[in-house]
Amino acid sequence: MKSVLTLGEVMLRLSPPNHFRFEQATSLEMEFGGSEANVGAALSNWGIHVRHVTAFPDNELGHSAAAHLRKNGIDDSLIQFSEGRIGLYFLEHGAAQRGSKIIYDRAGSSFSNYDGSEVDWKEVLRNIHWVHWSGISPAISRKSADLTLRILEAAHELGIRVSGDLNYRSNLWNYGKQPHEIMPKLMTLTQVMIAGKRDFNQCLGKDFESFDQAKSFAFDTFHKLQMIVRTKREVHSASFNSLSAHLYTKDQDVSTETFEVQPIIDRVGTGDAFAGGLIYGLLMDQSLEHSLNFAIACSVFKHSIPGDILNGTVEEINEILQGNSGAIKR
Amino acid sequence: MKSVLTLGEVMLRLSPPNHFRFEQATSLEMEFGGSEANVGAALSNWGIHVRHVTAFPDNELGHSAAAHLRKNGIDDSLIQFSEGRIGLYFLEHGAAQRGSKIIYDRAGSSFSNYDGSEVDWKEVLRNIHWVHWSGISPAISRKSADLTLRILEAAHELGIRVSGDLNYRSNLWNYGKQPHEIMPKLMTLTQVMIAGKRDFNQCLGKDFESFDQAKSFAFDTFHKLQMIVRTKREVHSASFNSLSAHLYTKDQDVSTETFEVQPIIDRVGTGDAFAGGLIYGLLMDQSLEHSLNFAIACSVFKHSIPGDILNGTVEEINEILQGNSGAIKR
Amino acid sequence: MKSVLTLGEVMLRLSPPNHFRFEQATSLEMEFGGSEANVGAALSNWGIHVRHVTAFPDNELGHSAAAHLRKNGIDDSLIQFSEGRIGLYFLEHGAAQRGSKIIYDRAGSSFSNYDGSEVDWKEVLRNIHWVHWSGISPAISRKSADLTLRILEAAHELGIRVSGDLNYRSNLWNYGKQPHEIMPKLMTLTQVMIAGKRDFNQCLGKDFESFDQAKSFAFDTFHKLQMIVRTKREVHSASFNSLSAHLYTKDQDVSTETFEVQPIIDRVGTGDAFAGGLIYGLLMDQSLEHSLNFAIACSVFKHSIPGDILNGTVEEINEILQGNSGAIKR
Amino acid sequence: MKSVLTLGEVMLRLSPPNHFRFEQATSLEMEFGGSEANVGAALSNWGIHVRHVTAFPDNELGHSAAAHLRKNGIDDSLIQFSEGRIGLYFLEHGAAQRGSKIIYDRAGSSFSNYDGSEVDWKEVLRNIHWVHWSGISPAISRKSADLTLRILEAAHELGIRVSGDLNYRSNLWNYGKQPHEIMPKLMTLTQVMIAGKRDFNQCLGKDFESFDQAKSFAFDTFHKLQMIVRTKREVHSASFNSLSAHLYTKDQDVSTETFEVQPIIDRVGTGDAFAGGLIYGLLMDQSLEHSLNFAIACSVFKHSIPGDILNGTVEEINEILQGNSGAIKR
Amino acid sequence: MKSVLTLGEVMLRLSPPNHFRFEQATSLEMEFGGSEANVGAALSNWGIHVRHVTAFPDNELGHSAAAHLRKNGIDDSLIQFSEGRIGLYFLEHGAAQRGSKIIYDRAGSSFSNYDGSEVDWKEVLRNIHWVHWSGISPAISRKSADLTLRILEAAHELGIRVSGDLNYRSNLWNYGKQPHEIMPKLMTLTQVMIAGKRDFNQCLGKDFESFDQAKSFAFDTFHKLQMIVRTKREVHSASFNSLSAHLYTKDQDVSTETFEVQPIIDRVGTGDAFAGGLIYGLLMDQSLEHSLNFAIACSVFKHSIPGDILNGTVEEINEILQGNSGAIKR
Amino acid sequence: MKSVLTLGEVMLRLSPPNHFRFEQATSLEMEFGGSEANVGAALSNWGIHVRHVTAFPDNELGHSAAAHLRKNGIDDSLIQFSEGRIGLYFLEHGAAQRGSKIIYDRAGSSFSNYDGSEVDWKEVLRNIHWVHWSGISPAISRKSADLTLRILEAAHELGIRVSGDLNYRSNLWNYGKQPHEIMPKLMTLTQVMIAGKRDFNQCLGKDFESFDQAKSFAFDTFHKLQMIVRTKREVHSASFNSLSAHLYTKDQDVSTETFEVQPIIDRVGTGDAFAGGLIYGLLMDQSLEHSLNFAIACSVFKHSIPGDILNGTVEEINEILQGNSGAIKR
Repeated sequence: MKSVLTLGEVMLRLSPPNHFRFEQATSLEMEFGGSEANVGAALSNWGIHVRHVTAFPDNELGHSAAAHLRKNGIDDSLIQFSEGRIGLYFLEHGAAQRGSKIIYDRAGSSFSNYDGSEVDWKEVLRNIHWVHWSGISPAISRKSADLTLRILEAAHELGIRVSGDLNYRSNLWNYGKQPHEIMPKLMTLTQVMIAGKRDFNQCLGKDFESFDQAKSFAFDTFHKLQMIVRTKREVHSASFNSLSAHLYTKDQDVSTETFEVQPIIDRVGTGDAFAGGLIYGLLMDQSLEHSLNFAIACSVFKHSIPGDILNGTVEEINEILQGNSGAIKR
Repeated sequence: MKSVLTLGEVMLRLSPPNHFRFEQATSLEMEFGGSEANVGAALSNWGIHVRHVTAFPDNELGHSAAAHLRKNGIDDSLIQFSEGRIGLYFLEHGAAQRGSKIIYDRAGSSFSNYDGSEVDWKEVLRNIHWVHWSGISPAISRKSADLTLRILEAAHELGIRVSGDLNYRSNLWNYGKQPHEIMPKLMTLTQVMIAGKRDFNQCLGKDFESFDQAKSFAFDTFHKLQMIVRTKREVHSASFNSLSAHLYTKDQDVSTETFEVQPIIDRVGTGDAFAGGLIYGLLMDQSLEHSLNFAIACSVFKHSIPGDILNGTVEEINEILQGNSGAIKR
Repeated sequence: MKSVLTLGEVMLRLSPPNHFRFEQATSLEMEFGGSEANVGAALSNWGIHVRHVTAFPDNELGHSAAAHLRKNGIDDSLIQFSEGRIGLYFLEHGAAQRGSKIIYDRAGSSFSNYDGSEVDWKEVLRNIHWVHWSGISPAISRKSADLTLRILEAAHELGIRVSGDLNYRSNLWNYGKQPHEIMPKLMTLTQVMIAGKRDFNQCLGKDFESFDQAKSFAFDTFHKLQMIVRTKREVHSASFNSLSAHLYTKDQDVSTETFEVQPIIDRVGTGDAFAGGLIYGLLMDQSLEHSLNFAIACSVFKHSIPGDILNGTVEEINEILQGNSGAIKR
Repeated sequence: MKSVLTLGEVMLRLSPPNHFRFEQATSLEMEFGGSEANVGAALSNWGIHVRHVTAFPDNELGHSAAAHLRKNGIDDSLIQFSEGRIGLYFLEHGAAQRGSKIIYDRAGSSFSNYDGSEVDWKEVLRNIHWVHWSGISPAISRKSADLTLRILEAAHELGIRVSGDLNYRSNLWNYGKQPHEIMPKLMTLTQVMIAGKRDFNQCLGKDFESFDQAKSFAFDTFHKLQMIVRTKREVHSASFNSLSAHLYTKDQDVSTETFEVQPIIDRVGTGDAFAGGLIYGLLMDQSLEHSLNFAIACSVFKHSIPGDILNGTVEEINEILQGNSGAIKR
Repeated sequence: MKSVLTLGEVMLRLSPPNHFRFEQATSLEMEFGGSEANVGAALSNWGIHVRHVTAFPDNELGHSAAAHLRKNGIDDSLIQFSEGRIGLYFLEHGAAQRGSKIIYDRAGSSFSNYDGSEVDWKEVLRNIHWVHWSGISPAISRKSADLTLRILEAAHELGIRVSGDLNYRSNLWNYGKQPHEIMPKLMTLTQVMIAGKRDFNQCLGKDFESFDQAKSFAFDTFHKLQMIVRTKREVHSASFNSLSAHLYTKDQDVSTETFEVQPIIDRVGTGDAFAGGLIYGLLMDQSLEHSLNFAIACSVFKHSIPGDILNGTVEEINEILQGNSGAIKR
Repeated sequence: MKSVLTLGEVMLRLSPPNHFRFEQATSLEMEFGGSEANVGAALSNWGIHVRHVTAFPDNELGHSAAAHLRKNGIDDSLIQFSEGRIGLYFLEHGAAQRGSKIIYDRAGSSFSNYDGSEVDWKEVLRNIHWVHWSGISPAISRKSADLTLRILEAAHELGIRVSGDLNYRSNLWNYGKQPHEIMPKLMTLTQVMIAGKRDFNQCLGKDFESFDQAKSFAFDTFHKLQMIVRTKREVHSASFNSLSAHLYTKDQDVSTETFEVQPIIDRVGTGDAFAGGLIYGLLMDQSLEHSLNFAIACSVFKHSIPGDILNGTVEEINEILQGNSGAIKR
């Protein structure tokens, strides 16, 4: 059995039901999610053993978050219960011309206070085949950036493959550091990067005019880098998007067809589903083409599922690639 | 007032709400449904007196099922309360590229144990103008096949018109008989068949290469057969289908236009709505063309209604044929 | 701060959830709404001080209705608690080919019994910049027609601008008067009319063959009239409509582009959202073109919100005009 | 099989969930109920054939009400679909020191407009063994009073037993007649009266100082009268009541023990459950004592069931009398 | 009309439904509440004009909180929209032997950042007859303590009556000050104190052995002090409590009878309901005895209402004092 | 960390919400539960590592059941996915005089088909400190009886302590064996028995007239037996019970006080909570008295929690023993 380690914050997610706006709500649907744990949960669907590194407050909300991860098949033995609050995000589901809206409320979370300095990460990583991080963790706090670095360095020493979803978020990075002071070191330790032009510009403090420029620079600069992957999304409305994906190695370009998704049940976590599918393909030694196709099908499939997490079997996802999409199964 | 007798199993249907996958659900929407009773419920909307033959366990679940039929206008006086359990089916509603999924759990049901041998069916059928059965009953158990045969033979003796929806289901037929050992006799007693090529092949143990071959064979073989009807469904996604219908007598072909349905609220029971509409048209002596159009409009309309059952007036359904589809009515 | 006075009935609205038909419902979603108060609630989103004139029974339902208006930012100090019941309307949400359906149950309401004769309307209107009425009020009862006239006459004396949404409803006008006996006087006092050909024909007892004829007659007849505005809606299905709007002064025609809305979450109140947006633009001295565009965007946006009321900021609505429609906002 | 005819209005009942006050509600639980139909529904649980006489509007709400009666086992063939609206009542559930609250909104209902003058009631009553009416019907309108009288006179001519629950309601009787102008004639035709001192005083226009006085007067005055029955309720709180019942013939007094009920899930319809139980006992020729005990146990049992209607088997109710109250049954 | 000003934080309250523990919840009921605004909302039920001083973030959650206050009749014109987050509290409802549980998450709220230094409080208070504060505000932050002091000083200068609910909370006071460094000054400016022995000890840094000692000290020390009021609660279980209240002036002791409340629907806000009732009585110049009785009845009544806020009329509450508690009202 | 192995069937539990009777329900609350897994889930609350042996169908329902166990802290690595269906039980919650009602539908489940013959149980049990079984497993099928025996024999060989809850169920034992043909051998391998007189009589085929007789016989016959434990429950109503517990060794009797529980939120699983508490105390080497008290407090606490499973900390449960029962915790 293959093992993956993911690391990152998991938040309590609260959403008005029935397409209500926040002011109309009298109850909120409750979920837990976070980019990297979402990736982990997708992988656990397919028989991968996933351990997630995070921290929660030692109260009922933190314990509920841990229970949620276990329910989704994630090994909870690396969860730290420590000082702080649980991060929150409020999500209003849009429809048609009204976009979905997220209000983050994550300052002071237990995760942001956790730097993992007391852990022997090489010991933890001994049976791990893949590590996945995202650009959200280093953006949260100095400690989270340190935690990420510690784990990536241990992975590097052990020769474990590393993927990173750069995922630049302008409303984070409030702790006094600029992305370009932190991110390059983490990128140096990463083989598979999920990133677009804007991510590269922001994380490197550059001003590339095209994705190609950014891509060339990255392959030149980061010697462990094996591939860059990005998705393209055309937003016709909050309920109707088109999706495709592209993968670049130094010498090869791979693309998928474009998928139209309508209606969108839940757009959140569709990028994480993509990352999960990509890691799965690469981890199972499938071709780049197959891996990328599986990844985009994961993303497409996730749009039909409420919550942050992709819940689907390999067979279900492959059916999308085989053109069987949406027939009733008895 | 016209009277119709329908026969078949009615199951408790359980579905996750809000497009949840099964693993996400903490409650299940509760309904009752079964192909032939769904047909009956549709007919009762339009003033037809419908009696349904079925069996339930003599417990609260069986009594709830009977109450559900009464609520939907069906005469419950032929319901048998007898040994066994209530058949169940679990339905997960799909969306976009994720198809809906049904898990049947109907083995050992009261209906499967009921053969109707103690009933004087000619007496029961005395005031009935039409009998409707489906290929699901003979597929459930030997006793259910016997029950179906008993009723069709009585109908035959009394000259009552009979329609049958062949509806081949590969996951049934587990009681030691093959379809072709049972179905031909039932088809011999049927004037109106709803069936496609695959249904004919499976029910007759044949390997017809085209629907036309199957159709010719059927008209040659089954001397009571007056017409064969089939629907065509193109599945663009779980939320978007196109539908049309076709009716064949020995000398005539009738077709409807193609209707696009989006979004699909509930795809289950749309074939039964079609059968109900068809029987209504024929029973009320409307033209083949009118009957078929009404039938397809019933099916289209049913896609917008949650649950197994078509709930709509003749006027509402005719509006679809008149091109008024979807304007608000005050 | 600008101030607007709106007047009209506010009803308790009751709707089956989950696209249920009425017969399937075991609970009803509860809202309050009424054409003119919906306009007022939209305006209060944007910082306008809105006072609404209406009457409710002095019981828990009437007080709930008042609380609902306050919640939506409306000044409740002109609400009368008086004899009668609360008007009701039952709304079944359609989907695809099944249109939404409204059952009104408003006879004998407190509003219908209220003529405002005890109020010094010139005093009330002293700080008001705009008055909005609709053709529903004069259609409800003689007293409601009188109330409307009293307020429009006071507005006229004070030189306050008046808009009216003619909104002809054939199922009202049951109190012994014909529209053309009542409406022309109210139209004489109105600068901005929202109306189509049918509204003019019904309200004036005419038989114009084209909107243009009606428009010419109106500009010739009503000397205070500054502009006529109408929306065009193409109903592809209950879930998919196309919308545009048109504004006519004596010498100028302004049109918007056509917007496609899919899926429609709630179609009710989309005309009121339009009226709200139009009044806002004109009140804030924006160009006719800008005002009309803002109004149609309000209407488009409202289709995505459950309930009667547009809840959205100026920025959110302008984004629709800027082509950003439906991207997630973090 | 025994047959009972009941007559009376059936209303749509709307209640805030979760012990909310009206102002807090955003949805309303939906039920249908009316005193006499509640009695009929209880009787149908126990195998009695029940036909209910009432009238509904010919719209989706009226049809839903009829479906609800069918679901509860009531024969709907005497329901009239006619002019008017559906009567409504809004019910707020109390708890502890806060009493439940009902707002009636039933003026102008289809039932109030229905006098049954076109029906041959002797024909209808031919196979009926018992007729049950209540004092609510004659209080609603002159037509409802006429309808009641027509049916009681037909029952009298056919020698059918009649029970009446006087059930005086001060907020009705708004149509210009006083109870004592209408009720005595109906009481003359009644064998079994459910009534307390206040009911007698109001219905007869008397001022009896004790129940005994009223009782003596009634037995002296109404020669068909066989028994008077009343319940006693001590209200400790909205959640905790004590109940007992008393039955008087000319020469005999029968009483039950006192039952404590806590918590009360739904207090509405508990008097109707009592009446249903009483009629059942008398109709099945059980002793007065047994009938009264069964009746009070029906009432006790109903307090634990949401909605207007007693839903329970004879065995379940008898268990209360046998002292087995509340153990789990597997 | 009398006017009251209240000041304090209003939080978003989130509770699992159906007596679920936090780990079981998949949705959370949503409410808003805060001790002082709860007092204000109760007062607004009875026709008092209430203005509430607080601060919210300028996002959808802050605007929802303001809408909630308006709905409950509170004048929102003194609400500040400013930097920070909305304070939260998570409430798990207990039952029987399981106590309710609150998790506060209010650090960094907009309210805690607001000191009201830019406001001319004497101007604001010009038409105010009463000011109410609680010991929670000065415990939250230095700024909140300053805000409270500013308002009390202005009230003092204008001779406005002031009530304070000391309400000591050990889990607050985290900003570096001890209660006795802050509270005495605020108490000096207060006429009506709601407090028990523990409150006095903690707020004054004393170690009184009895309430009487504390009371004497308080009357000796705080020269504006007119009365001290406290409630006594005996907790039999989470569902069953007994309540009484006591009021002390320098020369007089007043007590209420003891009320038993079962079941408790929502215990939160029952102290605020008490304070609201007390202020109402005193503000309306009722006797001390009447005021105290009304206050305890408010508290009893609130136990039956979900949410933070007492919603009830003077008549409903007086019925409790008249011994009519829990009978159904039609 | 201590480790416990539990074995037994886990069923999908379906319950009408809101105290509805089955016929009223339109949705069912969904849970999973089974006596022995409930014990395991309680233990996992307190830091015990619990592995549960069971079997599920390899479909979405089986996977949901496994996810539910993981969420509740149970190690799922011994779950078998195999032929059969998921066992079901339908639970109607009673109130007051109406008892709760369970309809089992578990025939043909995957668990009943699983005999564990392919597993090396001594290997599995190597790090286990305690094994818990119940009399339900051997009552389900021959294979389940064999599975139980295999595990108990392995435990015996390894000297692992074993507890068994005899839990006689008359509606099981349908596979052709009598309890006394199967149970004695399992009891021989058990140190801690939870049982009353009826359990002993049924499991041993005896007719003891008193518990004491049964107890003596058991201590004489089963040489590994260390203690017998039983609970006493007095059922005042479905909402109000009294509970106590008693423990007997050969030479010692220990009893708890009696606890009154009102209202009961969910009575199911309260015996399993007791067993869990007892095992915890004994496993942690606490005194018999302490263990028994903790056990009864666990049972009391469980009555307040919806679902099958005790969810509470050691501290929360101990508070019940310390007399703090029901105060709000902030």
